[in-house]
Amino acid sequence: MELGGEMGNEDCIFCKMAAGQVPVTKVYEDDIVLAFLDIGPVSDGHTLVIPKQHFEKLHDCPAELLGQVCCRLGRIAGAVVGAIKSDGYNVLCNTGRAAGQLVKHLHFHIIPRSTGDGVFNRWPAYKYQEGEIDEIAGKIRGNL
Amino acid sequence: MELGGEMGNEDCIFCKMAAGQVPVTKVYEDDIVLAFLDIGPVSDGHTLVIPKQHFEKLHDCPAELLGQVCCRLGRIAGAVVGAIKSDGYNVLCNTGRAAGQLVKHLHFHIIPRSTGDGVFNRWPAYKYQEGEIDEIAGKIRGNL
Repeated sequence: MELGGEMGNEDCIFCKMAAGQVPVTKVYEDDIVLAFLDIGPVSDGHTLVIPKQHFEKLHDCPAELLGQVCCRLGRIAGAVVGAIKSDGYNVLCNTGRAAGQLVKHLHFHIIPRSTGDGVFNRWPAYKYQEGEIDEIAGKIRGNL
Repeated sequence: MELGGEMGNEDCIFCKMAAGQVPVTKVYEDDIVLAFLDIGPVSDGHTLVIPKQHFEKLHDCPAELLGQVCCRLGRIAGAVVGAIKSDGYNVLCNTGRAAGQLVKHLHFHIIPRSTGDGVFNRWPAYKYQEGEIDEIAGKIRGNL
């Protein structure tokens, strides 16, 4: 069952965290977002940023709210990497189980990275067959 | 040398793409962003979304512009996964060479994912030592 908007909150651990019903190690909070440390980090300082309102998928979230959430990512990421003194970071939103989304509440990972840490060391790029890229782009443009 | 804002454009391939000086396989464009297919995809439909204005890092980008860029991600991602008929997608911004950023112009990857595709199959989570999470969170909060 697909849930979105303000529905589905009762079974959502992130909604409970946003409501203060489940404790988190908070790094930032305001009316729009809650940011807290992932208890199963892939690197020290691995932070999750969630909208307080429940949406399962990034494309379920109204554009205005998505902008409000994301405009906070730079300041939070800057604070994270400043604290960790890392060389960089990934901002990652996994949408759908196939993409690694485990909690069905939109969230952005901020993952501090150090040179050669091997955290994500696979980038399996390939090339399109001739004509394929234009065919795919045409399909995407047709959906916009 | 660190470059940001409107500087550094002359040597930036993404600035040239945004200015129409280097061809791209465009899927979407407006005053704020350009979205085009990555020519070295990790999955079919792998799309890049860039602000037209040059900023190297996510946290260099002014919050308002970052929000304007990201509020467009949902609509574009929805169009991409609708075209590809994928099961999900990753939205990913690599910041800094250590995090995999190759082009020094802020960009978001939209990477369609299918169950079991093995594109990113490593998530090396661990647990903090006792007290460590609170120490790190305190440092981050101190930077905010």
